[in-house]
Amino acid sequence: MERRNLIEIDGKRLWSTVLRSSEIGPGKRGGMRRLALSDSDKIMRDQFVAWAKEAGCTVTVDQVGTIFARRKGREDLPPVVIGSHLDTQIAGGRYDGVLGVLAGLEVIRTLNDRGIETKRPIEVASWTNEEGARFTPAMTASGAFAGVYSVDYVHALKDDDGFTFGAELKRTGYLGAAPVGGRPLDAYFELHIEQGPILDREHMPVGIVTKGYASHGRLVELFGENAHVGSTPMNERKNALYGASLMVAAAHEIGWSRHATEGKGNASRLVCTPNKFGIIPDFAQVAIDVRHKDAAEAQTMAAELDKAIADAAKKANVEAKVVAAWSFGNERFDPELVGLLKDAASELGVPTREMMSQIGHDAYYVSRVAPTALIFTPCKDGISHNESEHTTLEDSVPGVNVLLNAVLARANR
Amino acid sequence: MERRNLIEIDGKRLWSTVLRSSEIGPGKRGGMRRLALSDSDKIMRDQFVAWAKEAGCTVTVDQVGTIFARRKGREDLPPVVIGSHLDTQIAGGRYDGVLGVLAGLEVIRTLNDRGIETKRPIEVASWTNEEGARFTPAMTASGAFAGVYSVDYVHALKDDDGFTFGAELKRTGYLGAAPVGGRPLDAYFELHIEQGPILDREHMPVGIVTKGYASHGRLVELFGENAHVGSTPMNERKNALYGASLMVAAAHEIGWSRHATEGKGNASRLVCTPNKFGIIPDFAQVAIDVRHKDAAEAQTMAAELDKAIADAAKKANVEAKVVAAWSFGNERFDPELVGLLKDAASELGVPTREMMSQIGHDAYYVSRVAPTALIFTPCKDGISHNESEHTTLEDSVPGVNVLLNAVLARANR
Repeated sequence: MERRNLIEIDGKRLWSTVLRSSEIGPGKRGGMRRLALSDSDKIMRDQFVAWAKEAGCTVTVDQVGTIFARRKGREDLPPVVIGSHLDTQIAGGRYDGVLGVLAGLEVIRTLNDRGIETKRPIEVASWTNEEGARFTPAMTASGAFAGVYSVDYVHALKDDDGFTFGAELKRTGYLGAAPVGGRPLDAYFELHIEQGPILDREHMPVGIVTKGYASHGRLVELFGENAHVGSTPMNERKNALYGASLMVAAAHEIGWSRHATEGKGNASRLVCTPNKFGIIPDFAQVAIDVRHKDAAEAQTMAAELDKAIADAAKKANVEAKVVAAWSFGNERFDPELVGLLKDAASELGVPTREMMSQIGHDAYYVSRVAPTALIFTPCKDGISHNESEHTTLEDSVPGVNVLLNAVLARANR
Repeated sequence: MERRNLIEIDGKRLWSTVLRSSEIGPGKRGGMRRLALSDSDKIMRDQFVAWAKEAGCTVTVDQVGTIFARRKGREDLPPVVIGSHLDTQIAGGRYDGVLGVLAGLEVIRTLNDRGIETKRPIEVASWTNEEGARFTPAMTASGAFAGVYSVDYVHALKDDDGFTFGAELKRTGYLGAAPVGGRPLDAYFELHIEQGPILDREHMPVGIVTKGYASHGRLVELFGENAHVGSTPMNERKNALYGASLMVAAAHEIGWSRHATEGKGNASRLVCTPNKFGIIPDFAQVAIDVRHKDAAEAQTMAAELDKAIADAAKKANVEAKVVAAWSFGNERFDPELVGLLKDAASELGVPTREMMSQIGHDAYYVSRVAPTALIFTPCKDGISHNESEHTTLEDSVPGVNVLLNAVLARANR
């Protein structure tokens, strides 16, 4: 504690903000249902903005709805940013994303308590639609910040009811004026529950992520033709549902063929119309993706997926169009920031381990435009994107203390 | 024309009723969207009841909403019934079902015009939810009439929005008091567009159906577990969508393996939840079926389908439950009624051919409790369950005249 004058957060205060968040957009079984730019997301955003202003921050919202709460520094230098997301899955947990944003708030409150000024400004960022549960693709706002998506592209994204991202930003009061990205960040830190079982199993309080699993995804739309399921011969049908089902099966096969090396193939979404008994569906939309820790292997899997999409369309006699494609996770995190985290942990006496992330995070996209680090904290049994996702104050505080001290060191650089 | 004093319908009057029907619940592209017990179905039912009353009929509605419009006979004997359905697919055609009910009405109007009394009563029946587009299984009311489904079972069926068949009957004013079935019919005739290309291709005005393709269907529900698509290892996932997709693929494989003998495997509906990017679906529902003209072969295909359902559930590590199963089409139509149709056609100078039906009809279920015959009329290019379904007055009238004279002969028996 002496060498760098280490400080610690107020764990109970942090947890009171997590509990408040849990009340806003609760799920059916103890978890959360707070889709991006829904009414409950607006309430949560308003709550976060109120907390940030109480903590003396200046709040800016950019054109894709990302909230930046800025604690000024002694010098007007590029800021050190702590970020994550406040939106949740449709049947998600209380901590996924939320803990990271509120950890950032707690860092600022702790610095305020102690009257600590920093050389650089510190900002807390809450990115819009990280989950992709309402609008596909996921990590939308951080992607836009990194220049992966244009503002127009983001505004035009539609949810299942036809509402656009842009209109929902406006409706909820979060269509900000600030340009998206295009300004230097000195560093970006993200803290997130692991969403995997490793830290919990090893009773390890902090994971320092060095690299992500490479992930390649495709949102595919299929176009067939309505006809009677009974009288239309097999070779004359154009069943969009059949084509989409073959794609789901193929994505899983590709994942299974790399199961030994922890590769994965996924499908989480399939919509088809008219979707009524007796009529051949003329339209389907399916979201599939593949992941592997080895980037080259992931690339091979993606090529297999693209071939499977074409083969499935041919077999089902339908037209398939990839309407969105995304790749992430091949980023390496910044060695200097990783070093800062390790130093802080070591001085705090908090054990850490290096690990890879299997899951997409806003940090991936931000790492393309700023030095970035990602901290994991434990997640009970690795269960996530499930209402029973769980962690505790005790398991979370060590990671937030590591974050606090690393951010403080960087902000005085 | 002399031997039996043959008479003919008023084709233009028949067509004016078809056109009126086309205005009620129109689709987006010239066809129909009149789901069973929807607002538009209620308007169409009211229109049909008004027409039937104008024609002097007594109207009765049974407890599953089937409308029976009765023209009395000289004697109080079991009636000769002409029936079909007024509900349509969600993106269906103007003639499927509708033509059969309105042909029945035209038969009664023609008899009225000519002051022809019959010995037996003649009834026109409009069965509820033949399509199965809103409530699964299809041919619901005729199935209940034949004792395949109980009234309670039918009333409890739910549509995609959770509305029950029973509540919708009540809401639309068609929860009748008459018991379902349990009364003798002297004969049942149904006229329907072919929904296949044979008559159109052969320029044949009338098909006399001798037998149906046997069809076996399953509505399957799958239960998995929500989890993150990225971090959950392949062998720990319980992806209900994956299981359902394997079932869709298997149904098609089973169909393809009998393509040479006109066998078919189908999937028209797949629903899964939460159905959002990034979360493994914990629930799916899928409707699949198989069909073959050879009943034994169809039975073998059904056994393969049941095995495929179990295999798919095992492979996807989910629980699968068959929540509805149906079989139909193995019925043989009544040789005496078939003879009456052939005689009428021959005396009218209308060419006919015998054929099989590949598609389920209310006539299938009714044939289990009454002597039944099914007449097909041409359908342009065989296109059906598609808004561009098409036929013409000229192509339809010969079949209705055959129906009229066969019904008249039978009603005087």
